[in-house]
Amino acid sequence: MRTGVWLIGARGSVAVTSMIGALAIRAGLAAPTGCVLESPGLRDRVRPGIGDLVFGGHDITSVPLDKKAAELAEAGVVPLALTRALHDDLAAIEQDVRPLPTQSAQAGTADAIAADLERFRGRHGLERVVVINVSTTEPFPPPHPAHADLGALRAALVGPEPVLPPSSLAAYAALRAGCPYVDFTPSTGTRLPALDELAREAGLPYAGHDGKTGETLVKSVLAPMFAQRNLKVRTWSGINLLGGGDGANLAQPGANAAKAASKQRVLAETLGYAPQGETRIDYLQDLGDFKTAWDLVTFEGFLGTSMRMEFTWHGCDSALAAPLILDLARLTAAAHRAGRSGPITELAFFFKDPLGQVPHGLAEQWQALNALVAALSPPDES
Amino acid sequence: MRTGVWLIGARGSVAVTSMIGALAIRAGLAAPTGCVLESPGLRDRVRPGIGDLVFGGHDITSVPLDKKAAELAEAGVVPLALTRALHDDLAAIEQDVRPLPTQSAQAGTADAIAADLERFRGRHGLERVVVINVSTTEPFPPPHPAHADLGALRAALVGPEPVLPPSSLAAYAALRAGCPYVDFTPSTGTRLPALDELAREAGLPYAGHDGKTGETLVKSVLAPMFAQRNLKVRTWSGINLLGGGDGANLAQPGANAAKAASKQRVLAETLGYAPQGETRIDYLQDLGDFKTAWDLVTFEGFLGTSMRMEFTWHGCDSALAAPLILDLARLTAAAHRAGRSGPITELAFFFKDPLGQVPHGLAEQWQALNALVAALSPPDES
Amino acid sequence: MRTGVWLIGARGSVAVTSMIGALAIRAGLAAPTGCVLESPGLRDRVRPGIGDLVFGGHDITSVPLDKKAAELAEAGVVPLALTRALHDDLAAIEQDVRPLPTQSAQAGTADAIAADLERFRGRHGLERVVVINVSTTEPFPPPHPAHADLGALRAALVGPEPVLPPSSLAAYAALRAGCPYVDFTPSTGTRLPALDELAREAGLPYAGHDGKTGETLVKSVLAPMFAQRNLKVRTWSGINLLGGGDGANLAQPGANAAKAASKQRVLAETLGYAPQGETRIDYLQDLGDFKTAWDLVTFEGFLGTSMRMEFTWHGCDSALAAPLILDLARLTAAAHRAGRSGPITELAFFFKDPLGQVPHGLAEQWQALNALVAALSPPDES
Amino acid sequence: MRTGVWLIGARGSVAVTSMIGALAIRAGLAAPTGCVLESPGLRDRVRPGIGDLVFGGHDITSVPLDKKAAELAEAGVVPLALTRALHDDLAAIEQDVRPLPTQSAQAGTADAIAADLERFRGRHGLERVVVINVSTTEPFPPPHPAHADLGALRAALVGPEPVLPPSSLAAYAALRAGCPYVDFTPSTGTRLPALDELAREAGLPYAGHDGKTGETLVKSVLAPMFAQRNLKVRTWSGINLLGGGDGANLAQPGANAAKAASKQRVLAETLGYAPQGETRIDYLQDLGDFKTAWDLVTFEGFLGTSMRMEFTWHGCDSALAAPLILDLARLTAAAHRAGRSGPITELAFFFKDPLGQVPHGLAEQWQALNALVAALSPPDES
Ligand SMILES: NC(=O)c1ccc[n+]([C@@H]2O[C@H](COP(=O)([O-])OP(=O)(O)OC[C@H]3O[C@@H](n4cnc5c(N)ncnc54)[C@H](O)[C@@H]3O)[C@@H](O)[C@H]2O)c1
Ligand SMILES: NC(=O)c1ccc[n+]([C@@H]2O[C@H](COP(=O)([O-])OP(=O)(O)OC[C@H]3O[C@@H](n4cnc5c(N)ncnc54)[C@H](O)[C@@H]3O)[C@@H](O)[C@H]2O)c1
Ligand SMILES: NC(=O)c1ccc[n+]([C@@H]2O[C@H](COP(=O)([O-])OP(=O)(O)OC[C@H]3O[C@@H](n4cnc5c(N)ncnc54)[C@H](O)[C@@H]3O)[C@@H](O)[C@H]2O)c1
Ligand SMILES: NC(=O)c1ccc[n+]([C@@H]2O[C@H](COP(=O)([O-])OP(=O)(O)OC[C@H]3O[C@@H](n4cnc5c(N)ncnc54)[C@H](O)[C@@H]3O)[C@@H](O)[C@H]2O)c1
Ligand code: NA
Ligand code: NA
Repeated sequence: MRTGVWLIGARGSVAVTSMIGALAIRAGLAAPTGCVLESPGLRDRVRPGIGDLVFGGHDITSVPLDKKAAELAEAGVVPLALTRALHDDLAAIEQDVRPLPTQSAQAGTADAIAADLERFRGRHGLERVVVINVSTTEPFPPPHPAHADLGALRAALVGPEPVLPPSSLAAYAALRAGCPYVDFTPSTGTRLPALDELAREAGLPYAGHDGKTGETLVKSVLAPMFAQRNLKVRTWSGINLLGGGDGANLAQPGANAAKAASKQRVLAETLGYAPQGETRIDYLQDLGDFKTAWDLVTFEGFLGTSMRMEFTWHGCDSALAAPLILDLARLTAAAHRAGRSGPITELAFFFKDPLGQVPHGLAEQWQALNALVAALSPPDES
Repeated sequence: MRTGVWLIGARGSVAVTSMIGALAIRAGLAAPTGCVLESPGLRDRVRPGIGDLVFGGHDITSVPLDKKAAELAEAGVVPLALTRALHDDLAAIEQDVRPLPTQSAQAGTADAIAADLERFRGRHGLERVVVINVSTTEPFPPPHPAHADLGALRAALVGPEPVLPPSSLAAYAALRAGCPYVDFTPSTGTRLPALDELAREAGLPYAGHDGKTGETLVKSVLAPMFAQRNLKVRTWSGINLLGGGDGANLAQPGANAAKAASKQRVLAETLGYAPQGETRIDYLQDLGDFKTAWDLVTFEGFLGTSMRMEFTWHGCDSALAAPLILDLARLTAAAHRAGRSGPITELAFFFKDPLGQVPHGLAEQWQALNALVAALSPPDES
Repeated sequence: MRTGVWLIGARGSVAVTSMIGALAIRAGLAAPTGCVLESPGLRDRVRPGIGDLVFGGHDITSVPLDKKAAELAEAGVVPLALTRALHDDLAAIEQDVRPLPTQSAQAGTADAIAADLERFRGRHGLERVVVINVSTTEPFPPPHPAHADLGALRAALVGPEPVLPPSSLAAYAALRAGCPYVDFTPSTGTRLPALDELAREAGLPYAGHDGKTGETLVKSVLAPMFAQRNLKVRTWSGINLLGGGDGANLAQPGANAAKAASKQRVLAETLGYAPQGETRIDYLQDLGDFKTAWDLVTFEGFLGTSMRMEFTWHGCDSALAAPLILDLARLTAAAHRAGRSGPITELAFFFKDPLGQVPHGLAEQWQALNALVAALSPPDES
Repeated sequence: MRTGVWLIGARGSVAVTSMIGALAIRAGLAAPTGCVLESPGLRDRVRPGIGDLVFGGHDITSVPLDKKAAELAEAGVVPLALTRALHDDLAAIEQDVRPLPTQSAQAGTADAIAADLERFRGRHGLERVVVINVSTTEPFPPPHPAHADLGALRAALVGPEPVLPPSSLAAYAALRAGCPYVDFTPSTGTRLPALDELAREAGLPYAGHDGKTGETLVKSVLAPMFAQRNLKVRTWSGINLLGGGDGANLAQPGANAAKAASKQRVLAETLGYAPQGETRIDYLQDLGDFKTAWDLVTFEGFLGTSMRMEFTWHGCDSALAAPLILDLARLTAAAHRAGRSGPITELAFFFKDPLGQVPHGLAEQWQALNALVAALSPPDES
């Protein structure tokens, strides 16, 4: 059951927090708080377990994992004592984190990525490897005709000009290497017809997009509440103040637009109409890995009465994301083993911008997840 | 299909807002915002409709309905123009609002209440009458052995000492008169074994307790969110600041205790444990019919990280409650017609402190409600 | 003592709320809540009084004052009963609200404006007229060499091309007509060397800029608190959500930039350094004349401890601004009578972006205001 | 210039944070953030400096200082690295922290306390010793006739029954030993006519009460803002959620009442009337040394418009208090040197419930403090 988790962006905050967490839980040094598959109703249902996961990945920076771990401890994301206790285990993972290959043609880069995946699988004798993108959010890529057709894509990739954004190139390489692909970011990833075709052809599942860890999570329960009570939401405005590496990147207009769009979908989808208002994202270096989001909702009730609700969410993004990475790796591996291919739409529970025509209310997503777990649990295990 | 709605506390804010609203909707002067049975997925499923409802009730005050309506308009709860347009219709209802009878023995009072119900039914040729308690919240009553047994209760009621609190006496009289009973308050109502026995004997349904209109509504979606994400809620504290008649009463320690207990159940029930913290209720006359509630939730995530959320809810309690009164009248009438007796546990969606062993998360309550509506809709109508 | 108040933007929300308020206070129909000169310590110190004010003005729209009054009542800014009671008085003011003149050359326009001012003064036998700009915020104007020199300006104004933005042209005309000028907006107004020269030459005082009515008012007391306690503010971020005419205009990037800059000065000035963070302004039509502002302040205390404060301000901008218009008219008239010319820097208390090198903390501004009042109160009156 | 700081409650959070801070600042390991006398305008004005302070004190617990320091580091109040670096210095202070003496008669206890103070002074060759109470808040003591007269008090203290609450007994002993006394808690301390008499007789200054570190600090700038703008505050309600040792004690009704009363004075004093509303204090063990306070202010503006403001304060109480202890020790020592006796009312800036008829607005208190500093700074030093 040993299962590889190959992280694109393996030296980033989410990636390293995931690694430390998995090691700590396996060593009995921490409880699996925040891991959905470890909640009372789902515990012991899905294999592989956390202890079966083996980590590796690509990154474009070479900052050592233990340096990043120290930074995360300094920032209050992980306990300092834990990073010390796990120093050797982290050093072992370091061997499997490799620089992102680059070749002159994207086809060559994809081959090099796939080769790294093969090597990882072989070295650890892994049953399967799940590739998860936790790298920096990209801007929307320019459209390209080859995105729509797998044959055309294959042809275009050998040419000198880049055809795919990095997230999609990684997805292409993963699928080529027989690995399911999960995108935890708002980047394009597998969301191109040509890549969907490839996944189905290869019999591989994929999942995404954009981990739902804070303000949008709250929206996904509040918006259904207003809808079920037949209260009319007039405006819903929000501001997200965040520091950290992700924040620095989201301060770039392109990435910001990708993210903000991802955050607004839930309202229109669950309310049935789009209230006035927008979600802003502002970068404040001094906030570090903690994020503060504030939302104001104004709504109309019986006989036109004006009412309002506001909430402030103060969360540590990496601490919210990391346990979901462990859940997604396990669920995607189990889905692959069960023969699923194409988008795993039942994982909408985890994403701001889920694949497929799926409900955006958290409660229905929770039920879909439970149904998936039931389908993936062998009868004798559940 | 004409259905009576007999309100205990008929001259109070919730009652009069319900009446104005039903009249306005019937007259096409207002949209049914806030009425759950008028939301897109449930519209036209349950009969009677809003237009079929006929109002009457008991109260201990004699403040005229149109005076109360003017006060509600002044307080911003209902539009002034509406109270003017509906002046005559309200005056017609005034004929059916009667002083709460009192006799020396409670048995006599119950007879007089039942007689008023009969008269109301007869005068308007109503198919059935639903009694709904929207009167002032009572303190917890002292225990009495006759509460546990219908025979003993009947015997005790003819004695000179009061056995039942007002809400239960009204429930007893309603059931005696063949009327389903709904308690929108945290008072005792039908929650005594002897009255459950009576309801079943008489083949009558009942429902309650304590309309869920603000802070607890929000809790009922946020608490499941934390549970589903396996985040550990450490503390959940709240304060409710409210004015109005209800606020003045809740400033009394007895009523306050009844209400605060009602507000906390949702946490333990949906989280599976009781976090530290309490809900406070403070009366501030100057806030009028609008209520501000503030809640702070502190929670622990992955690897012990501390996070927090706070929300402020600023709502008009009567405007939130009134449309639910219309929903409850219609659903209870339909359940009665369908032959239901005993507690209608599928109405938990509407209540802070629902009857029966039912889920406290709003999403599951929503599903139960939808199942009830499906069961109550004649096949050719749905 | 009859004093004219000539409002540029006389048909806008602030203007009409000011007129209604002055009429209501004079008629004994409302208390002067929000009028600084009517607070216990300053009452009866400054003449003219509210009852001495006579209103007129320019606007580019022709929406009648009573229609605007009805809109303000509908929006909850002024009581409906008041607009009805004052209908005739408002109709009288209507006679003195004139379309903003336009001529081919700006010199001609200025002459026409000045002529309107003269007519107003003559018609009502006014001792003096104070011109106050409460019109739509302009974008920053392009620089022009004639802004720096009065002679050059006079020459340029007769040319065919516009030299001055509307607020400065109005200021020029006012000063030409012997009227003090107050700018309640962030627009340029008298803030050009040529106009300062004109004011001093003419012996006329002027004041501004940008009425301080909400979030910035709060900042002007909180920022000194942090400074006095030697706490280090790390970030200060805010968002302003507002509807209304002003909001619609501020949604335009040019005006938004002018306003946001005006809002941030207080921090650097009172803290002595600029913390990270920005103030955002978002337009939400549905919020109407009420504005919600939210600010997050993170700060560092002893031994580097991180702490935070957030506040939400929910105010009615026109109701906050209007009483200040009455105060400013009275104070500027009194300063004129007392022979003041040039900027009245002691009025910083009223402005986000005050003229001169003045303190930005509210407490010091309050003292400056009190000193001004003392200087303007004749000994036998105070 | 070596000055003793004798802390009653020397093993508590505030005390130990003060000690660590003073040591760290002296060693150049930390900046004096939060120390008012180290802010740009006041720096180097008052002697003794932080480096001149020598710590000792009484407590009823024997938990070692370094254990408490470790707890404070664990709780995030002080950096772990600092407690390690200062281990030896803290161990040195340990020698001067003694168990609170108790004798059968309070006169004997007072003698024993005074003897400890003398020994401390002698051992370190201190110019003077300031006694500061930072021990657990007491309930209001029962009244006693001897509180009103020094002679009667002296007589009563030799009797077998306790006459003074611990804070007043400590104050008595301090004054007897020639030491100025500062009360940072809401306890009685010197607030008895007999003790004021003693202080004046002995030519000793004293100060208090109840350090102003959070919600009340904010109130002391917001309430004047409303007053100066002539806005009518209708309601002001607050809730304080706190853990820590202080929180545990304040959960006791007696102490809670003392504290809540102390917190409300600022409103009536600065507004000139008492708005509706109360301040609640709730203990939540899980919040540790950090406190969250939420306040709602509703106010009325021009023409009766209703508006509102709310704020949330999330602060570390000990980190806010400790630098003020250093300020108070220095200022009180300087006042003593300058020959002051009786209450130092110019220290109101530091206290929720200041001594004397003093302004409660922070700005005026700030000016009084500056005037005091000017009076205390020798001409050649300022
Ligand atoms: N933390 C959350 O709650 C959350 C929620 C949803 C989505 N996300 C997304 O997860 C991603 C990671 O977030 P983070 O906080 O760890 O950010 P981070 O900046 O700490 O880490 C990103 C890492 O990706 C690396 N990287 C950049 N480009 C790369 C490339 N082309 N190939 C491989 N590696 C590359 C960077 O060097 C860095 O180490 C972001 O896209 C973020 O938007 C995070
Ligand atoms: N508004 C909400 O959101 C909400 C939510 C849940 C529960 N409730 C409950 O609904 C009830 C009504 O609230 P409201 O705001 O209308 O209060 P209200 O004070 O305006 O009205 C209560 C009415 O009950 C009458 N009354 C008192 N005792 C009576 C008795 N023994 N028999 C008959 N009438 C009696 C009073 O005279 C008054 O007219 C309260 O118990 C409240 O706790 C309200
Ligand atoms: N309300 C506040 O709290 C507040 C605070 C600070 C500044 N201000 C400023 O006060 C001004 C007025 O605000 P409002 O809410 O009344 O806006 P508004 O949109 O209701 O009114 C502005 C009026 O100005 C008129 N106008 C536009 N251009 C004009 C011109 N060139 N000459 C004459 N009239 C012109 C418009 O027709 C309109 O009637 C705005 O600039 C706003 O930024 C308001
Ligand atoms: N931290 C703040 O922001 C703040 C602000 C205002 C007032 N205060 C007051 O300061 C005091 C100390 O707060 P803390 O957080 O350090 O509390 P704490 O509980 O950590 O410390 C109090 C210490 O006093 C000791 N003590 C109790 N009774 C004593 C007695 N009779 N004589 C000597 N020592 C005694 C206790 O053993 C304990 O060590 C409290 O009264 C608190 O209300 C604190
Ligand atoms: Na808040
Ligand atoms: Na808030």
